[in-house]
Amino acid sequence: MAKGLTPRGDDFASWYNEIVQLAELADHAPVRGCMVIRPYGYALWENVRDALDRRFKETGHQNAYFPLFIPSSFLEKEAEHVEGFSPELAVVTIGGGKELEEPLVVRPTSETVIGHMYSKWIQSYRDLPVLINQWANVVRWELRPRLFLRTTEFLWQEGHTAHATDPEAQAEVRQMLDIYAEFAEQQAAVPVIKGRKSDSEKFAGAVASYSIEAMMGDGRALQSATSHDLGQNFARAFDITYQTAEGGLEHTWTTSWGLSTRVIGAMVMVHGDDNGLILPPRLAPIQVVIVPIWKGDDEKAQVLEAAGKVQAELAGLRVKLDDREQFKPGYKFNDWELRGVPVRMEIGPRDVKNEQVVLARRDVPGRDGKTFVPVAGLRAAVDELLEDIQQSMLDRARAFQAQNTSEPDTYEALREAVASGFALAWWCGSAECENKVKADTKATTRCIPFDQPGGSGACVVCGAPASEKVVFARAY
Amino acid sequence: MAKGLTPRGDDFASWYNEIVQLAELADHAPVRGCMVIRPYGYALWENVRDALDRRFKETGHQNAYFPLFIPSSFLEKEAEHVEGFSPELAVVTIGGGKELEEPLVVRPTSETVIGHMYSKWIQSYRDLPVLINQWANVVRWELRPRLFLRTTEFLWQEGHTAHATDPEAQAEVRQMLDIYAEFAEQQAAVPVIKGRKSDSEKFAGAVASYSIEAMMGDGRALQSATSHDLGQNFARAFDITYQTAEGGLEHTWTTSWGLSTRVIGAMVMVHGDDNGLILPPRLAPIQVVIVPIWKGDDEKAQVLEAAGKVQAELAGLRVKLDDREQFKPGYKFNDWELRGVPVRMEIGPRDVKNEQVVLARRDVPGRDGKTFVPVAGLRAAVDELLEDIQQSMLDRARAFQAQNTSEPDTYEALREAVASGFALAWWCGSAECENKVKADTKATTRCIPFDQPGGSGACVVCGAPASEKVVFARAY
Repeated sequence: MAKGLTPRGDDFASWYNEIVQLAELADHAPVRGCMVIRPYGYALWENVRDALDRRFKETGHQNAYFPLFIPSSFLEKEAEHVEGFSPELAVVTIGGGKELEEPLVVRPTSETVIGHMYSKWIQSYRDLPVLINQWANVVRWELRPRLFLRTTEFLWQEGHTAHATDPEAQAEVRQMLDIYAEFAEQQAAVPVIKGRKSDSEKFAGAVASYSIEAMMGDGRALQSATSHDLGQNFARAFDITYQTAEGGLEHTWTTSWGLSTRVIGAMVMVHGDDNGLILPPRLAPIQVVIVPIWKGDDEKAQVLEAAGKVQAELAGLRVKLDDREQFKPGYKFNDWELRGVPVRMEIGPRDVKNEQVVLARRDVPGRDGKTFVPVAGLRAAVDELLEDIQQSMLDRARAFQAQNTSEPDTYEALREAVASGFALAWWCGSAECENKVKADTKATTRCIPFDQPGGSGACVVCGAPASEKVVFARAY
Repeated sequence: MAKGLTPRGDDFASWYNEIVQLAELADHAPVRGCMVIRPYGYALWENVRDALDRRFKETGHQNAYFPLFIPSSFLEKEAEHVEGFSPELAVVTIGGGKELEEPLVVRPTSETVIGHMYSKWIQSYRDLPVLINQWANVVRWELRPRLFLRTTEFLWQEGHTAHATDPEAQAEVRQMLDIYAEFAEQQAAVPVIKGRKSDSEKFAGAVASYSIEAMMGDGRALQSATSHDLGQNFARAFDITYQTAEGGLEHTWTTSWGLSTRVIGAMVMVHGDDNGLILPPRLAPIQVVIVPIWKGDDEKAQVLEAAGKVQAELAGLRVKLDDREQFKPGYKFNDWELRGVPVRMEIGPRDVKNEQVVLARRDVPGRDGKTFVPVAGLRAAVDELLEDIQQSMLDRARAFQAQNTSEPDTYEALREAVASGFALAWWCGSAECENKVKADTKATTRCIPFDQPGGSGACVVCGAPASEKVVFARAY
C-alpha cells in the first residue's frame, strides 16, 4: 500500500483527494475552489486533448477562440439559460481601474457570445453548417470544490455548431456523443452508458441533452461528457438566421457539446487502487518506466548501457529512464506505481547477462504481473503488453459496472441498489418521482439509456405505466 | 488589388485592420477591446503553438496550468510588479452571487501565483531546476485595442523557471530568447533583433528583460517576444527557498518568458501586400490550394479526377482542394490570395491532357510567379517551391529591415530616421535621453542589440560618452 495514502475501501473520498495530490496530478490553488494542474496531470490532459481533437477534425470541425468575458445582458437573452447559470457566475465589475458600466461575466459556457458572433457570420444556407470547437477555461463558482471533479475554474472543450435543418443538428448531437463514448472506452478505458438526460437534468436552454455516464470505483456515477440539442432556442435569442436556397429566411438549428478535465477524475476513480493511480496506456504520459538496478560502478555502466539500448528500441513510445542516483529501486517502484505508469521495466546485471528484462504490469500487482522477456523481440512484447493492459482495464471496469448495476422492480430494492451502484429501472418520466428518489436516497436520474430493454413496465417509484428505463445513481 | 481593401501604402493601419477581418483571421468581440480568433487565424496559432511547444519540450520544459484568478494581495507583494500592472487589471468582485471579501484579479501574467506554488513545491536543490510553461489566456485592460496587437484578452504562453544559481537562470533566459528568435526567423520568416530592454522598458519586477524586435511593413517596431531575468525578486516576495547540498537555505533564481498571439499581427504586417496576406509556408494553415478549372460536366469529371490524384500525391502537406461550384476560378484566385496561401495550383482540361499543372507562388504576383510543372515529379517540385518561398520571404523582410535601418550620428538624423524606420545609435543609457526622444518623435528604445559594433561613441541625444548602441523606433 502506498505510504500516506488512505486505503480506497476505507474512505474513497479521502483516497481520491490524496492520490490526486500525491501523484502530482493537481494541487489546490490559493483561490478557494481553483486548482493547479501540475505537469504530470497536464501531460495526461494533453493526451486527452490530442485524441479528441483528432476526432473533431476528422469529422470536419475547426478550432477557434471566443472571448472570456461576456456582457451580462447576453445571458439574459435566453430565459432558462440565465436562470440555470446565474448562481454560479464570477463577475468583473472593475476594468482598467474604473467601475464598468455593464458588468462582465467570466464565461461559464459560451453559447451566448458564440450565438452573437454566428448571427454576424451566417447569412446564407451556403454558410452552413458551421462546425466550430474551442479549447478553453471556464468558470462556475463552486462551494464544495473537489480537484478535477468540481472546481471554480476548469479546462474543457466546447463545440458549437449551426445547421440548416433539425435532423442535421440532431445527427451532429448524436455523432459527438458517439465520439465521446468511443474516446472514453477506447482511450480512457472507462465504460459508459449513452443516453438522454431527464428534463430536470438537461442543460439550461437545451431542447434535449445527452450524456455519457460512467461508474466510479465506489459505485457512484460521473457524467463524463454532454451533447446538447439546442433546437432553435439560441438561434431565436441571438437572431441567427440564414437565407434558404429558395430565398426564405430561417433560424438555424444549433448544438453544443463538451468534455472537461473532469474526465481525469474519472480515470483516477475508475482504475486506481491502494497503491495509487493506474493509467490507461493510450493516454498515460509515461507508458513504460525503465528502472535500472545496480551495485557499484561496473554494474552501473553495464546496466545503463543496456537500458539505453532498450530505450532506443522503444522509440515512439512514451518511455522514461529513471536513472536517479539518490533513490533505491524499491523507492522508484513505489513512486511509479503511485503515478500509475502501465509498465515498469527492470534491468539488473543478471538481466544484462541473460539478455532479458523484467516487465511488471501495473494493473496486476505483485508476482503475477511480472514476466521475464528476452531483449530480442522486446518491442513487440511491450506493444502487446500495453494493448493487453488497455483491454484488461476496460474489461475489468465493465465487469465492475455490471456487478454493481441492478434492475430493481420495487422501491425498496431501488433504495438498496443506489446505496452502492446503479439502478436501471422503469420510470414514468415525472419530475415528482425523480424528486422523491433524490430526497430519499440522494440518487438522481443519470440518463435514459439509448439501449432499452423494449416493452414497458411499472414506474419503480409510483407504479404508473412507464415505457423507458432510466439509470438512477448517486452522482459526483 | 483585393476588393474592399485599403492599399497598404495609403493607410497602413486601415489596411491591417481590414485584412485581418477580410481574411477571417479575427473579428471584434462584443466586449470592447476583446477579439474572436476565427478558425483560419486559430489554425495559424495552432501551428505557432506546436512549433514552439516542440522546442520547449526538447529543452526540458513541461506544460502545466495555473489558475485564472489571483488574489489581489499577491500582486502587492512585489512593489514594481503591482505598480506596473495596476492600471491594466480586470477585477472580479462578485462570485456565486456574493460580494467577495478579497477581490480577484484576472491574471495579467502569472509570476505571483506561480511563485506562490513554487514556494510550496520547491524544498531542496534536488527539486531544481523547475522548468514549466503554460499556454493560457491573459487579460490586460486596453483602451486603444487593435486586433492581435493590443487586445484586452489575448492568448500566449508564459514560461516560469526556478534555478539554484544566477548563471543557470541567465543561461535559461538567453536560451529561450534564442528559441524565440529562431522560431521568428525560421518559421514566421520574420527577422528579429535580439537585445536587452532599457531600464524604463523592462518588465515590472525584472532585473533585466530581453526581447526580439521586428520591423513591420511601415517601418515601425513590434516587440515579438520577451524573456526576463527576475533575479531573486519574486523568490524573495514569495519565499521560494531551497536547501542547498551543503545544508544552507537559499532563495531560488527565477525567469519568465512569453510569446503571444501578437506574433500573428507581426506576420500580417511584415509579409502582407495589397492583395492580402502572405503566410510563411511552415506556419500557413493551408500550404497549397488546388483550384480546378472546368466547363461542362465532362471536363469537370476529368479535372476533378486529376486534382484528386495530385492531392493524394501531396499527402503530408496541408492541401485544400477548392471544388466549390458556386464560384468561378477568378474569384477563388482572389479569395486564396487574400488569405495568403503560399502556393496555388491550377488544373484545367489542357493541363490534364499535357500531364502538368500550373503553380502560382503567392509571394511573386502575376505571371512571374507562375510555372508549368509536369505531374511526374510534382511532389518534389512543390516541396522545393515551399522552401523557396519560405526563404525568399525571410530574405525580403531582411532586406527591407536593412534598407529602413540607419545609424544616425546627429539628433536631426535620428529624428528623420525614426519617422520611417529603425535608428541604431549610440546612447548614454540615461532615461532623460530616452524621454526626450520619445517626446520629440514618439520613438522609444526597443532594445540594446547583443550584436554591437564595438568601441564607443557619443550619445546621439546628449553627446555624453556611450558604450552601446540602441535601437530607437516607433513601436506597436
